[in-house]
Amino acid sequence: MRRPLALTLGDPAGIGPELTLRAWQALHDEPQAPAFCFLGDADLLAERAALLGLTVPLRRLANPAALDQASQDFAAIFAQALPVLHSPLPAPSLPGQLEPANAPAVLASIEHAVALTQAGTCRALVTNPINKAALYAAGFRFPGHTEYLGHLAGLDHPTVMMLACEALRVVPVTLHVSLSDAIKQLDAATLAHACRTTHAYLRDHMGIAQPRLAVSGLNPHAGEQGAMGREELDLIAPTLDALRAEGLDLRGPLPADTMFHERARQSYDAALCMTHDQALIPIKTLAFDEGVNLTMGLPFVRTSPDHGTALDIAGHGLARADSLISALRFADRLATPTSGYKSPSDHPNQEAMP
Amino acid sequence: MRRPLALTLGDPAGIGPELTLRAWQALHDEPQAPAFCFLGDADLLAERAALLGLTVPLRRLANPAALDQASQDFAAIFAQALPVLHSPLPAPSLPGQLEPANAPAVLASIEHAVALTQAGTCRALVTNPINKAALYAAGFRFPGHTEYLGHLAGLDHPTVMMLACEALRVVPVTLHVSLSDAIKQLDAATLAHACRTTHAYLRDHMGIAQPRLAVSGLNPHAGEQGAMGREELDLIAPTLDALRAEGLDLRGPLPADTMFHERARQSYDAALCMTHDQALIPIKTLAFDEGVNLTMGLPFVRTSPDHGTALDIAGHGLARADSLISALRFADRLATPTSGYKSPSDHPNQEAMP
Repeated sequence: MRRPLALTLGDPAGIGPELTLRAWQALHDEPQAPAFCFLGDADLLAERAALLGLTVPLRRLANPAALDQASQDFAAIFAQALPVLHSPLPAPSLPGQLEPANAPAVLASIEHAVALTQAGTCRALVTNPINKAALYAAGFRFPGHTEYLGHLAGLDHPTVMMLACEALRVVPVTLHVSLSDAIKQLDAATLAHACRTTHAYLRDHMGIAQPRLAVSGLNPHAGEQGAMGREELDLIAPTLDALRAEGLDLRGPLPADTMFHERARQSYDAALCMTHDQALIPIKTLAFDEGVNLTMGLPFVRTSPDHGTALDIAGHGLARADSLISALRFADRLATPTSGYKSPSDHPNQEAMP
Repeated sequence: MRRPLALTLGDPAGIGPELTLRAWQALHDEPQAPAFCFLGDADLLAERAALLGLTVPLRRLANPAALDQASQDFAAIFAQALPVLHSPLPAPSLPGQLEPANAPAVLASIEHAVALTQAGTCRALVTNPINKAALYAAGFRFPGHTEYLGHLAGLDHPTVMMLACEALRVVPVTLHVSLSDAIKQLDAATLAHACRTTHAYLRDHMGIAQPRLAVSGLNPHAGEQGAMGREELDLIAPTLDALRAEGLDLRGPLPADTMFHERARQSYDAALCMTHDQALIPIKTLAFDEGVNLTMGLPFVRTSPDHGTALDIAGHGLARADSLISALRFADRLATPTSGYKSPSDHPNQEAMP
């Protein structure tokens, strides 16, 4: 028996509802489908399905006890209909139109998903995109989705984001700040925390006994021995030395531009990058539609698509569910590590990075 | 009659000689081969061919007059043997061992190539990699290869570098400086010069009547309206507005991470990037071996491989000639614009960048 994945509501005005419907259509008849339960309003799904002409049977579950019972035979239920732990929205939702009155339901779905996952009713958590502006207007006080999850899980350390596709896993060490601020924020503690968290995640959730990490420099050519910046010599290299002494398998600081071609990617299990663009450019170049966001450091598996609510196209039938489908597949495998991952080191013709 | 390309010596201790031999082997029997003449020591090529077990007949041309005569039938000559405008090295050259006594010959080959190209004896110039440290020791006083070419051509403005492969053309607006300095160096004049030079080059050498340029932001998500940095609002956007008023077709500032996937690449002819890594990561991820360096703003066509002298592997038979071969092909087409390029806008199923 495999318990369901919990899929949150996300912002009901965005593309989340239609992606949910399309993901079920794409997945329900697979033999080992990553079966999920939607935590939100079943009528919302029915309305969007009607609007877009999608035929998706829904299976309403009245309460978590019903879900717990259904878990016994969840794969069979999922094959027949999209399971919904029904919780009605306070106000009607129209595609593309933010409705502040629905913000509490968006948050309640996340809280519910965390509770069900921590209780073991669900195996892992997949989140639909939220709109932070709408939540802030309703009193939300966290910088983002992930920080809220950390709070709900009672974490005393920051989580770390990984973006993953089949070809590449990247970890941006600095994120959504200006490039000037990223240079200032980069410090030994942040870098070491990202390396340790990635190492543990690859080992514990991806079944890689000896994870190999590649770490970029901040400057062009990783600074070329100080000729173009000193962060590599003064900060990154000493931090990596200290982590090697702890037993981590680390390469770097490496020139970021030569880390991501096909041969280079065979030489590591994840790449840690000093800036947002160093990490996001290669993965979005290689896998624009299928990239998945994984949150490392939480006490449960959480994945999400790597795009936003896309209010401008919500309800138009244009949204692609590839990333949500990948997020569901990743969550399914991450919560079952033995079923899952291969390290590139298992490839017979592994080549060294030049 | 198509006149030859001039291929410079580069550092004789590096991989240039063996790449030259392999490029001739790969190209000489093509019907429309990008025929080149090597400007350097024929005995050096013969020695390296013997060392590596390569069979490459050489055709020694004693002086530029002989080259001018040979130009009448250069394709036929190139099909039979590698043409060399012979100029002996002052000192023996061993693979991997820099020899300061040979520095004047390295520079003389570059000067010679410029003179022959400007005189019309050669159609375009392709340069083998040089080692700046070896040249500095011999009194060279230019920051690099390209600046030296600009000096020889009597330029009063900086050249602009483009990196190109079949799938992508990128122009880094800042280059080999620390990331902190790149942020400081980025200004309206530098950005405008790069945009204008790229526009003119695509039009004049690539046969693209209305070049479409995509311009990245500096910060993650192009700053998201000032939420993560103000360079987009204060510097990049106003500069692009002024250039649009001159008639340039520009998009941006765009989030760098979503500019380089396959659909996005169909919507522009070249991408201008604010930092080295924003430009180099996508092209080296997509085309690690075949990328070519094009120098824009010179009064002649110049291309070069996008790698260095690789002293550590010189003479070992490990060096790949893909990038030099691409550089020769690009130079050949760039010097014959009508024979050459298609804009992605000619593709029937062009899609807009999301």
